[in-house]
Amino acid sequence: MRSPDSRERVRLSDIADEAGVSVATISKVLNGHGDISPATRARIEGLLTARGYVRRSQRERPPGGLIELVFHEFEASWSMEIIAGVQEVAKEQGLAVVVTESGGAHSLGEQWIEGVLRRRPAGIVLVASAVLARQRARLAARGIPSVVVDSAGDPPADVPSVGSANWAGGLAATRHLLELGHRRIAAITGPSDMLCSFARLDGYRSAMATAGLDVDPLWVRFGTFHVDFGRDAAREILALPDRPTAVFAGNDLQALGVYDAARERGLRVPEDLSVVGYDDIAPARWVSPALTTVHQPLRRMGVEAARMLLDPSARTAAGGVARVELATHLVVRASTAPPREG
Amino acid sequence: MRSPDSRERVRLSDIADEAGVSVATISKVLNGHGDISPATRARIEGLLTARGYVRRSQRERPPGGLIELVFHEFEASWSMEIIAGVQEVAKEQGLAVVVTESGGAHSLGEQWIEGVLRRRPAGIVLVASAVLARQRARLAARGIPSVVVDSAGDPPADVPSVGSANWAGGLAATRHLLELGHRRIAAITGPSDMLCSFARLDGYRSAMATAGLDVDPLWVRFGTFHVDFGRDAAREILALPDRPTAVFAGNDLQALGVYDAARERGLRVPEDLSVVGYDDIAPARWVSPALTTVHQPLRRMGVEAARMLLDPSARTAAGGVARVELATHLVVRASTAPPREG
Repeated sequence: MRSPDSRERVRLSDIADEAGVSVATISKVLNGHGDISPATRARIEGLLTARGYVRRSQRERPPGGLIELVFHEFEASWSMEIIAGVQEVAKEQGLAVVVTESGGAHSLGEQWIEGVLRRRPAGIVLVASAVLARQRARLAARGIPSVVVDSAGDPPADVPSVGSANWAGGLAATRHLLELGHRRIAAITGPSDMLCSFARLDGYRSAMATAGLDVDPLWVRFGTFHVDFGRDAAREILALPDRPTAVFAGNDLQALGVYDAARERGLRVPEDLSVVGYDDIAPARWVSPALTTVHQPLRRMGVEAARMLLDPSARTAAGGVARVELATHLVVRASTAPPREG
Repeated sequence: MRSPDSRERVRLSDIADEAGVSVATISKVLNGHGDISPATRARIEGLLTARGYVRRSQRERPPGGLIELVFHEFEASWSMEIIAGVQEVAKEQGLAVVVTESGGAHSLGEQWIEGVLRRRPAGIVLVASAVLARQRARLAARGIPSVVVDSAGDPPADVPSVGSANWAGGLAATRHLLELGHRRIAAITGPSDMLCSFARLDGYRSAMATAGLDVDPLWVRFGTFHVDFGRDAAREILALPDRPTAVFAGNDLQALGVYDAARERGLRVPEDLSVVGYDDIAPARWVSPALTTVHQPLRRMGVEAARMLLDPSARTAAGGVARVELATHLVVRASTAPPREG
């Protein structure tokens, strides 16, 4: 009678034969033990990856009961929401959450991987895919799955991911302005190397097109997701001869920069200029006037990513790995109003 | 020859005698094994605590290499700074950080303690002392030390803590306004059940007193640390017959509420009203005008707490447990100016 383990044993011994080492040596590599030479370790890892060996994670219940959550960069009003979401699921499951900032894709090196192997987490939630494909493959070979929380709209093709509806968000923001009666609507968006910048902008363009309106190329600006860029871009937009009456900003920080530029010119928000942001971070509620913005469900994205991590069936889809896209919705506050002039 | 371990062994066997159990049973309790009856466990823990037994943490290098960081409540613009600080030290030491939200002092129950015992962290950083004294004692008996990051100005007497200079912050904020020429300065502070509310207010009172100025009782308000309370309090203050020309707010969110109340009355900041905040959260830089505020070194507090946790000698002081108070400093931005009238 074959035990449920036999498939794994057979395959491990195949790899041992091929590598010319014992199964025990391979186990040591898989368990992150230190007494294997780097050369042997690298050779065995190469074979494990090449042969597509995946330890079955169900049998390997993590001893520490951990989820690893890795950020490319901590950002105050933003990262906390995702932490809270992952934490919510972890609590339900009696797990704890290890939070790490990678600070650049290349700084999560050997030491981090060794640490993860020692901790044997249930899996890894990556924010903005802070971990390189090669590292993810090494971890996957040891039965440690990864899921990406993707706010940039551009997840790696080979990892399950949870994103949100950027295009629909841009559409909803612009439609709201159109419904108020605006016709000359400018759009500030994010960096041109992030897909979400295009998705939000395309939503804006489609809303304009379906309303039968042309978009003046001078109304559209790409740049960083910071207050300063929002201010600079809005200064240019508000200096245009036929001034737009509304601005859709690519995120809330840019929108706050638009507020500044409006004040500099003596324009009041929303009487003289309507402004819509994106993200719905906490300061959107605190500023004056409170910001109308597209809610990106960051906390919910953390929840879904953690659930996916703990449920292997949720990580695959017909086309390969699962991709979940959560809905965004518009939150109307006090920064939008009908235009004064038609 | 006595081994370095003998002192611990002797004491464990004393406790075993007293409890009428074997040393092995006590070890199981210390290591969080499950096969001990709750009654026996409680009795042994009581004895361990009563006899002041402390496992020497140096010998018990944590297998997972973890620091636990526990928040009473996640707050976006605030918690992230402390996480970043603790993370900085953890990285230096090759440790990982487990982040937990207690959500009220009573919800970190048995399950959390069991999890911590399984994970065997190097120690626990508590933000706003989210863990009860009894729980801390249980963890300390197992050689898991705690350090409190204390922003409320009121750390438990029996735990090492890192706070910041609230009184000096209140003094610096008020002196800045006095130097600009303000005489009628109002103060909004936090809840009357938090010592930091009093410390900041006392700094304000001392600055006023040393300038030879009386404080009108109507200028002082206690309330929650939220935007709404800042707005409500400022509405009353700005409606006073002899209106104050400046407001020192207990935190940055209250200061944003003061901005709102000023705008409602058609008063410009800083021309008609100077405003100083407290904390220096990121939105203080983003709002318009950028907020003059007292910088509370939250990240640095996280760093110091983690260092203290990893260095037993730093956790004790002549008077008992160590208490570090980090300096605060004023950051002058655009929300303060000389008053228009003397």
